[in-house]
Amino acid sequence: MSWLQTSIMQVRGTGRDRSPDTHSLDEARQQRFHFTIGPYSEPVLQVRPGDRIVVDTRDAFDGKVRSEADLPSRVLTMPFVNPQNGPILVEGAEPGDALAVHIESMKPRGPNPRGTCCLIPDFGALSGTAFTALLNEPLPEKVRKIDVDEEGVYWSRRVTLPYRPHIGTLSCSPELDSINSLTPDQHGGNMDLPDMGPGSITYLPVRTPGARLFIGDAHACQGDGEVCGTAVEFSSTTTIRVDVVKGWNLQWPRLETEHMLMAIGSARPLEDATRIAYKELVLWMEQEFGYDRWDAYMMLSQCGKVRLGNFVDPKYTVGAGIDKKYLQP
Amino acid sequence: MSWLQTSIMQVRGTGRDRSPDTHSLDEARQQRFHFTIGPYSEPVLQVRPGDRIVVDTRDAFDGKVRSEADLPSRVLTMPFVNPQNGPILVEGAEPGDALAVHIESMKPRGPNPRGTCCLIPDFGALSGTAFTALLNEPLPEKVRKIDVDEEGVYWSRRVTLPYRPHIGTLSCSPELDSINSLTPDQHGGNMDLPDMGPGSITYLPVRTPGARLFIGDAHACQGDGEVCGTAVEFSSTTTIRVDVVKGWNLQWPRLETEHMLMAIGSARPLEDATRIAYKELVLWMEQEFGYDRWDAYMMLSQCGKVRLGNFVDPKYTVGAGIDKKYLQP
Amino acid sequence: MSWLQTSIMQVRGTGRDRSPDTHSLDEARQQRFHFTIGPYSEPVLQVRPGDRIVVDTRDAFDGKVRSEADLPSRVLTMPFVNPQNGPILVEGAEPGDALAVHIESMKPRGPNPRGTCCLIPDFGALSGTAFTALLNEPLPEKVRKIDVDEEGVYWSRRVTLPYRPHIGTLSCSPELDSINSLTPDQHGGNMDLPDMGPGSITYLPVRTPGARLFIGDAHACQGDGEVCGTAVEFSSTTTIRVDVVKGWNLQWPRLETEHMLMAIGSARPLEDATRIAYKELVLWMEQEFGYDRWDAYMMLSQCGKVRLGNFVDPKYTVGAGIDKKYLQP
Amino acid sequence: MSWLQTSIMQVRGTGRDRSPDTHSLDEARQQRFHFTIGPYSEPVLQVRPGDRIVVDTRDAFDGKVRSEADLPSRVLTMPFVNPQNGPILVEGAEPGDALAVHIESMKPRGPNPRGTCCLIPDFGALSGTAFTALLNEPLPEKVRKIDVDEEGVYWSRRVTLPYRPHIGTLSCSPELDSINSLTPDQHGGNMDLPDMGPGSITYLPVRTPGARLFIGDAHACQGDGEVCGTAVEFSSTTTIRVDVVKGWNLQWPRLETEHMLMAIGSARPLEDATRIAYKELVLWMEQEFGYDRWDAYMMLSQCGKVRLGNFVDPKYTVGAGIDKKYLQP
Repeated sequence: MSWLQTSIMQVRGTGRDRSPDTHSLDEARQQRFHFTIGPYSEPVLQVRPGDRIVVDTRDAFDGKVRSEADLPSRVLTMPFVNPQNGPILVEGAEPGDALAVHIESMKPRGPNPRGTCCLIPDFGALSGTAFTALLNEPLPEKVRKIDVDEEGVYWSRRVTLPYRPHIGTLSCSPELDSINSLTPDQHGGNMDLPDMGPGSITYLPVRTPGARLFIGDAHACQGDGEVCGTAVEFSSTTTIRVDVVKGWNLQWPRLETEHMLMAIGSARPLEDATRIAYKELVLWMEQEFGYDRWDAYMMLSQCGKVRLGNFVDPKYTVGAGIDKKYLQP
Repeated sequence: MSWLQTSIMQVRGTGRDRSPDTHSLDEARQQRFHFTIGPYSEPVLQVRPGDRIVVDTRDAFDGKVRSEADLPSRVLTMPFVNPQNGPILVEGAEPGDALAVHIESMKPRGPNPRGTCCLIPDFGALSGTAFTALLNEPLPEKVRKIDVDEEGVYWSRRVTLPYRPHIGTLSCSPELDSINSLTPDQHGGNMDLPDMGPGSITYLPVRTPGARLFIGDAHACQGDGEVCGTAVEFSSTTTIRVDVVKGWNLQWPRLETEHMLMAIGSARPLEDATRIAYKELVLWMEQEFGYDRWDAYMMLSQCGKVRLGNFVDPKYTVGAGIDKKYLQP
Repeated sequence: MSWLQTSIMQVRGTGRDRSPDTHSLDEARQQRFHFTIGPYSEPVLQVRPGDRIVVDTRDAFDGKVRSEADLPSRVLTMPFVNPQNGPILVEGAEPGDALAVHIESMKPRGPNPRGTCCLIPDFGALSGTAFTALLNEPLPEKVRKIDVDEEGVYWSRRVTLPYRPHIGTLSCSPELDSINSLTPDQHGGNMDLPDMGPGSITYLPVRTPGARLFIGDAHACQGDGEVCGTAVEFSSTTTIRVDVVKGWNLQWPRLETEHMLMAIGSARPLEDATRIAYKELVLWMEQEFGYDRWDAYMMLSQCGKVRLGNFVDPKYTVGAGIDKKYLQP
Repeated sequence: MSWLQTSIMQVRGTGRDRSPDTHSLDEARQQRFHFTIGPYSEPVLQVRPGDRIVVDTRDAFDGKVRSEADLPSRVLTMPFVNPQNGPILVEGAEPGDALAVHIESMKPRGPNPRGTCCLIPDFGALSGTAFTALLNEPLPEKVRKIDVDEEGVYWSRRVTLPYRPHIGTLSCSPELDSINSLTPDQHGGNMDLPDMGPGSITYLPVRTPGARLFIGDAHACQGDGEVCGTAVEFSSTTTIRVDVVKGWNLQWPRLETEHMLMAIGSARPLEDATRIAYKELVLWMEQEFGYDRWDAYMMLSQCGKVRLGNFVDPKYTVGAGIDKKYLQP
């Protein structure tokens, strides 16, 4: 039996017993991609809890960096980066519920799949930026095209990195705001968490009727922090299943894998993102796993795991996790 | 001759020679207030450069905290706080221009004007918050109603504070995003700068046709940092004049008073807000006042002035200023 | 009657009724300057509460930047910068007391007094630094020598700045640690607060018998934040009076001027320095001026004043102040 | 062949070919423990490169929290916490060298070994603290005694955690400063990195003749971030080997294990600690492994690993690591 059978999604999702329909959200269906996540755009698809969706995502550069000569400063126009598929309406999702998104698989898309990694001026963790505004000259601008297949990411003659795909940006619409797709926050957004790959389930707070799911920003692999500002960005065919957990009123996204539960926070400075993640995890252990609050807090001090998602975006993202075995009764 | 004659607004504004029309934006005209600042709402007024607008602003609690018994946690519903008037379209304003907003006067509004100051749970600079997420119990919730007139703010029997009104939230719409009215950023927003009172001119980057000006959040007075989270919030009649400076492509808001120019940054952590403000001021001195970049930087190290706007909102706001006398040729 | 008669120093200092002796701490007496502030160095002077000391301070570069050709990277050796006079023992000062330091006057020292301002590689608020470690190339290195007298700071042909001298670094020794003179903290240290000039009284926590006072780092003037990393650094003759306030167990330095009381915090990020300063001020109002804690907190939100000292040193410094008139009973 | 044969310590250490002497640094030999790390204390031992030292460490509470009734606020006196063994002089170590410290083994010490975990008022990541100074009431104070052996950490009836011992505080003396043992910085200090356990080699910058090694603060296990402020603190018998790498002039500590190299940074805010760690790793790859700087930066964005050490101490600690396989020529 797969661990999925005991996942929160499978145990509490309203669509758990349905036999899922499969929907395609290809380029033709999507037509217009979105650069802001909010309640003001037209839904492209309506699905039911439990359904499967096969999504053709574009890379974070909207496909405009075609060769190593296509410098970002020339071919990109802000804020038109990180295009998102969606919004997808999920029947029955209401404010106060959680939307479960199980990533089933991610495959490189296109006839000759290549990933792209860029050094973008005034962007990245080891550079002055629009927020950490300095008078230093920007770093050199660089583009790297990398062959990618499901066996590996062919970084250089010297180094082949493992293919570890994940979704960088996953969101339900906020209630009133419309937030650019570069920013992570309570709605999800551009979290860039390497854990959000095939086999993971992300739970997002629902703030509008139908949840309005957005998805995009596939990475073939990414290190902790996405330190230079970009991962191996690629266009993907990503298959997800969605479900609705009624009355699970989350404040921040959460993530489940076979062995771990994780709470996710996004903020600046980085300690605030970490505080959010750990506090959410403490409260989760208290509310759903029978832990005394202080026992949970002190025990996480001995066994908590921290994953740095991005620390280059307008808000930084941190996941705080615990091994599920410590949550068994 | 008033200093206004030599202000940037008066020297470079396209409406400088027009005899202004005066428009009223009262409650009836406004009808529906806004809690998010973006391109998706219906304009309530269209004016021409140089025009005057008399705006009836509501207090940041949307008038719902009527007595000291009306605890915020009972009468307020997030995110429906800090209601904004607007959007106001200004003819001729295009992306790449700056909108000048001269605050001419601010008066308490209503038959028995009172201001309101609250301690809101998990909000404020000396408390754990939604972002600085802690396990401490929240501070006590408190409401203070304060009589206000144009002579003073009657804080207590012991203390009368001077009436120093200013506008807390002033914005032009972002291009794509719609940002809640609690957050300051490049578009302006909830800066809570005490300098933004009668006699000041604020310059905002225009990102959409017509600028889409929003205004609200009047304060009868406020200390640096707005440390408890709220000022003496009141409903006001605020009279502004607006103008358009063509081709002045600002990245962040700026402010002018009789004796000072100020650049404004909003970010977390607080040093990033300060960096933005000072960098913008260095570049301004270089681009428009004949300073060598390094001379400007080193001289501001000797004479720059820093104002802390808010350090309680989702982003903190800092103004970096210089005495105009040092900018004369 | 001078306001000093009603100062905390004069009202509560044990030496208030003594007729002060005057001591000279000139170069000959000091002999060896200190680059670290702690309990391990030999006292150079012992004085009594109420005494006056005339101190010959060296500039922060230890006099090694003699011309605009003396680049810091060539003539300075870390950590041998910011030389301090002292330690001075004050009779009767014990851990748990406060040491009051009234700066009576500051004069430029030497036959042809010049100040020095430098751009030091990888130092300053708008540059990558040793702590905000980036891959950008450093800013250009620059030295500026500036004529200084008690009438003005002759920055350039275009600009003469006012002579506003103050002491950048003022400390009592920590109990066990010895802290480099570049870092401000609870012991005082390199606060770089423009308010710490003639007419001010600083109160420092005493942590060792005799207090072990260190002083240095005179500035002819300085803007808020000392943004480029250095002020107009000069060698001075600084006259101080010291006194002991028994049993005033401060956690952080405080400052008094004719019209203001200020609490001082030093930390990173900058919001933590500001939090410390404001919290100390709230507690001070509660403990010594009859304010309810929440009333003090809410009122400072309306009338508190923030001064940014340095935001370039290993910790940033902020003062939070209140007008004394609001503290009258 | 053990991987140690190819470690930097074994390849470059001056003592690599010596047959090591074994020294005992037990309680009797240590006599007086240290709470500050600097050049002013008396050495307790002198060893030669390659030598082995068996160290009896005390727990971070100096053994004063003997039962769950011994509340820290009653039995501890600041700054007398986190006692350190040492200083140990290593022959031949000079400023500009690196000291290698290989932890060979760590065993619980005492007849009935128990670890201690505390919630200390105004300390910990999810609480207001001395630096993040708030007006909230402190969290409840708590003490937890935990049985520990080399098989496990017996947290509760429900949970047994794995025994994963490591050294929390490891330092060479700074040149002039003496830094309390709670603070991590360039000298090492209280890094609280779970990777610093048996099998690891830490490389520390040498700043004084003989290096003056300090060691203490053993943990039976610890989660990422040490979120509640304390690990399972215990007294240990820790066996180390030390060696000297001549002319390896490090700015910050580094760490080597069988499969990973890691650079370590300590700073606030947390992003600054992370920046230091990643920058040091980029430069290391450039200087010693034949990587182009920008290639290293972009590749770490795909494969870098981040470990959060502490985020509760006066500075936060982050390690940035890379798998050694990517460094092979």
